[in-house]
Amino acid sequence: MAQRYVRVKSQEGQIYYGLLQLSLNVEVLDAPPWLEGQPTDLILEPDKYRILAPCSPSKIVAVGKNYADHAAEMGTSVPAEPLIFLKPPTTVIASEMEIKYPPQSQRVDYEGELALVIGDRTCDCTPEEAQSKIWGYTIANDVTARDLQKKDAQWTRAKGFDTFCPLGPWIVRELNPGARLQTFLNEDPHPVQSAGIDQMVFSPDFLVSYISQVMTLLPGDVVLTGTPFGVGALNLGDHIRVEIEGIGRLENRVINR
Amino acid sequence: MAQRYVRVKSQEGQIYYGLLQLSLNVEVLDAPPWLEGQPTDLILEPDKYRILAPCSPSKIVAVGKNYADHAAEMGTSVPAEPLIFLKPPTTVIASEMEIKYPPQSQRVDYEGELALVIGDRTCDCTPEEAQSKIWGYTIANDVTARDLQKKDAQWTRAKGFDTFCPLGPWIVRELNPGARLQTFLNEDPHPVQSAGIDQMVFSPDFLVSYISQVMTLLPGDVVLTGTPFGVGALNLGDHIRVEIEGIGRLENRVINR
Repeated sequence: MAQRYVRVKSQEGQIYYGLLQLSLNVEVLDAPPWLEGQPTDLILEPDKYRILAPCSPSKIVAVGKNYADHAAEMGTSVPAEPLIFLKPPTTVIASEMEIKYPPQSQRVDYEGELALVIGDRTCDCTPEEAQSKIWGYTIANDVTARDLQKKDAQWTRAKGFDTFCPLGPWIVRELNPGARLQTFLNEDPHPVQSAGIDQMVFSPDFLVSYISQVMTLLPGDVVLTGTPFGVGALNLGDHIRVEIEGIGRLENRVINR
Repeated sequence: MAQRYVRVKSQEGQIYYGLLQLSLNVEVLDAPPWLEGQPTDLILEPDKYRILAPCSPSKIVAVGKNYADHAAEMGTSVPAEPLIFLKPPTTVIASEMEIKYPPQSQRVDYEGELALVIGDRTCDCTPEEAQSKIWGYTIANDVTARDLQKKDAQWTRAKGFDTFCPLGPWIVRELNPGARLQTFLNEDPHPVQSAGIDQMVFSPDFLVSYISQVMTLLPGDVVLTGTPFGVGALNLGDHIRVEIEGIGRLENRVINR
């Protein structure tokens, strides 16, 4: 199994980056791994920590309509250039934390996505240079208040509510280019979303290059690469799980805000 | 003169919050003033520091079309609710730093604005509670690639380029409710923008309350309150200056990216 990079909070309230061992012990690092964090002598046993989102991004840059079949289900075509938007860092929650349904919306959707974690300060890089700037991969759910997205035209409010970016559970460094992304709702064994990440219109390298020509990406920043066909509604009490082959499972329950 | 709260970088590369004295010495604080920073014994003389943007926001939440005459000049009406969007933190530059004109745009505009600096963690607050969450006031220029704003529909790219949020030069705690905002381009003594900040459609208190019902605002976060009538183009070599009575002047020159 690939090395899993986690961020955890200890019982004492300290936040650490670490390596998740098969025993579920966490081997604590002295800094984020993309900033050359090295192992320390501290080992946290499973009942001595809880998992946080695996990084703490200064910004989350997301991409709209990056799978053709999802663009079609939204009644639009694929854009000629990546369509970028931002989610505020306050949207981030860990796997197994709760998505809070806001009272302003009557229609909140899940959107399973591959997330890229940036390892280096990245400004004006080419697609060829971008690969070395992507430190690793994790899973995201770009939760969206679909009614407000349509009403506001700007997507900031619809995609910006607290808890609207489940992220994790950990980061892996390598990913099979054809890895499958699947989303499961409640007990249904059939996925509501299922696509190879190689079905993206714009590749991770292209996206990082494109974004870096606008805004400098910083270590720990996150790029969400878009959602495939099959988005749908969440309701109070629902359990939503996004899986990517070679990474793991991101799971969250929906409660009232 | 009101107390001016600054953030500076010393010759040694240290970043400090401080009080700007009339002598232009900076009395260094041991923490951001909204986190109860207290004066230290360290005083920096004018040739021993340079001014940074007065805070380092985890997010910048901006508001569109918040002056009726500006909404009209953009060919639109005032929205029924505040229209919010985000600028990434990497847009922030200090007064007297350069705005970089990106090659992707052929039309970059200035937008002079009042900026609110948040002092407290703020979630789901009422307009009545919001006043106590606004720690102080500074000046911003919401620089916008107007052609890309129209092309993309989402405003993230157009308003998200590095250097597109000049902010400062300092923060004051109190502001006359009718203070005048004026923007001056190059040597022209006549302002290109001139409005009382009381001409806003949604007040600072209302905006902070509205935003806090979507996303939690954190200490040091910034809210841009919208620009009045008179936006216009910037060209290479231009000098743009935004003034607000009771705060000061934010000035920046335009160079090539």
